[in-house]
Amino acid sequence: MSRVHNFSAGPATLPLSVLEQVQSELLDWRGTGMSVMEMSHRDKPFMSIATEAEADLRELLDVPANYKVLFMQGGATAQFGVIPMNLLRGRDRADFLLTGVWSRKAVMEFRRYGTPHVVAEPADGRYDHVPAADTWSLSDDAAYFHYTPNETIEGVELHDVPEVGTVPLVADFSSSFLSRPIEVERYGLIFAGAQKNLGPAGLTIVIVREDLIGQTHPALPSVFDYKAVADSESMLNTPPCFAWYVSGLVLKWIKAQGGLEAMAARNARKSSLLYDYIDAQSFYRCPVARPDRSWMNVTFTLADAALDTAFLDGAKAAGLPGLKGHRLVGGMRASLYNAMDAAGVQALVDYMREFTRTRG
Amino acid sequence: MSRVHNFSAGPATLPLSVLEQVQSELLDWRGTGMSVMEMSHRDKPFMSIATEAEADLRELLDVPANYKVLFMQGGATAQFGVIPMNLLRGRDRADFLLTGVWSRKAVMEFRRYGTPHVVAEPADGRYDHVPAADTWSLSDDAAYFHYTPNETIEGVELHDVPEVGTVPLVADFSSSFLSRPIEVERYGLIFAGAQKNLGPAGLTIVIVREDLIGQTHPALPSVFDYKAVADSESMLNTPPCFAWYVSGLVLKWIKAQGGLEAMAARNARKSSLLYDYIDAQSFYRCPVARPDRSWMNVTFTLADAALDTAFLDGAKAAGLPGLKGHRLVGGMRASLYNAMDAAGVQALVDYMREFTRTRG
Repeated sequence: MSRVHNFSAGPATLPLSVLEQVQSELLDWRGTGMSVMEMSHRDKPFMSIATEAEADLRELLDVPANYKVLFMQGGATAQFGVIPMNLLRGRDRADFLLTGVWSRKAVMEFRRYGTPHVVAEPADGRYDHVPAADTWSLSDDAAYFHYTPNETIEGVELHDVPEVGTVPLVADFSSSFLSRPIEVERYGLIFAGAQKNLGPAGLTIVIVREDLIGQTHPALPSVFDYKAVADSESMLNTPPCFAWYVSGLVLKWIKAQGGLEAMAARNARKSSLLYDYIDAQSFYRCPVARPDRSWMNVTFTLADAALDTAFLDGAKAAGLPGLKGHRLVGGMRASLYNAMDAAGVQALVDYMREFTRTRG
Repeated sequence: MSRVHNFSAGPATLPLSVLEQVQSELLDWRGTGMSVMEMSHRDKPFMSIATEAEADLRELLDVPANYKVLFMQGGATAQFGVIPMNLLRGRDRADFLLTGVWSRKAVMEFRRYGTPHVVAEPADGRYDHVPAADTWSLSDDAAYFHYTPNETIEGVELHDVPEVGTVPLVADFSSSFLSRPIEVERYGLIFAGAQKNLGPAGLTIVIVREDLIGQTHPALPSVFDYKAVADSESMLNTPPCFAWYVSGLVLKWIKAQGGLEAMAARNARKSSLLYDYIDAQSFYRCPVARPDRSWMNVTFTLADAALDTAFLDGAKAAGLPGLKGHRLVGGMRASLYNAMDAAGVQALVDYMREFTRTRG
């Protein structure tokens, strides 16, 4: 067995120790004589797994007591519809900050439920930076303000929390969830697909301030009613149990690493290692403005795009798969989620250097 | 490691050989150097897993070419809303046959989208049989006819396909999916949560005739638009990859067992073993009318309900967990899904016999 350094943008690399634990208890979870996959979600063994995962998540993020933590299905894309159906509460408008593909998708989906107001977007259609806050035009009747702290595809990240007054802040943290501390109390709602920093695809986390929920669109299916999900402790129907369990192990792994402050320090170091190398030579180039570069998804291009395939093939052969940029933007992308260690990033830098020596 | 005979109603027992394979390739799927949980859903390794699972499912069920097979999230409960949002197509009414808790839940959810018409329900509120077909009052303007071939909670099963003329037949096969052949061409739509006969919770299968899709409720989130999901081959967003993969292994296991005819024969035998014992003595009693008894979920009561706890505790100690009936109906329930072997059912009968000898 030879594990690779997996730079995939998601589903993504998971901590080896977590996978080893999953493997060791796959046929018999702690003497129950069954796999977690086979457990009734309403019996004690799984209830203990579920409760512990929520407690660990609350502890790591220091989630205030007036916020509900929901374990849902459908991915962040489902939330693009589910959020307005829960949070518009009779209003028609929400504000959107456009920084890349994912915030644009959220706007498109919102149109089914109301009139989106774009507070700012890059003027020339180049999503390589965050529009300066002093250019944002906030509306005065928005039900909430939606933004994407980290744009997975472009590699653009907001490193500060937007200042939007009293309007509830809604943030799609899918690709930067748990990569650093989050000031949860500054948000109305945080959501994230699990498949980057948390666990397997198929689980979606929603953290929502409880005063915002309970007033839903009449056509909202009940399994996506935040109040109903909260009241049933995310067991209104059968949850994605196995993804919940693996995510719980990842949360324990994060705690063992020192929590989110330690993750932040580690992620800042890892991304600097790669950005510093890119900036110090001329063959590779990162298109993103320096203050807005993502810790999680490092995008870069080669001076000669004709070499892209050779670069990717060589990387894969060297045990560095998953570097191909998203089809909408091209180029390369190295995703450096929590479970990617510094040795993996160093191996990538070494490969990139060697590639320029032989092919650049 | 001592595996139990797990009678849980779902999530439920899975074939041991499948779990062993999952375990063996958990850290490195076929030389990729990564777990299936870590794979991009758009790269070749996972695409091959996904495509093969769909092909095996189509082969097992002999799905006609004009039906789409969708791999979705949210469970059958989400479908209770998603189905009317896709299939009402401007109409207001659908017919419902009430046979237990799950068909009643479907009616309740439907009220958000239209006016349900109940074609029949047990007169005295006792959901212990299927109302006779000659008592059904079909409406003449129904967009579809919804029923639940197997009611997981009551243990009531329709062993024949309802005759409803040209109205599209919609069937919640969650707890009897893959337990026997299905004449797919007689249905407009079939759906099933995976967590009984197919795989881990978090995956929902929808098989739908393609002429029925594409005309949706304006508030339907796009990830639940059957046409959009079909057009993207169930990859409109990140699917529940790991559940899809495990389900694919279960499908191969079913094929290796001889397919759905073999499953049907085996399931008929297994349930007869238990029903025959129950009917041959007087301490245990099955409340369900004989022609309508489920092959999958065998419900029964003890002559003295005060012994229920002792029965369940003793069963668990004997390696027979999961026998407690659903809280809404009480009593006992033995779920005999595909992966429960005859030896497990025999062990249960032996335990029941011994319990009556010592405590009955």
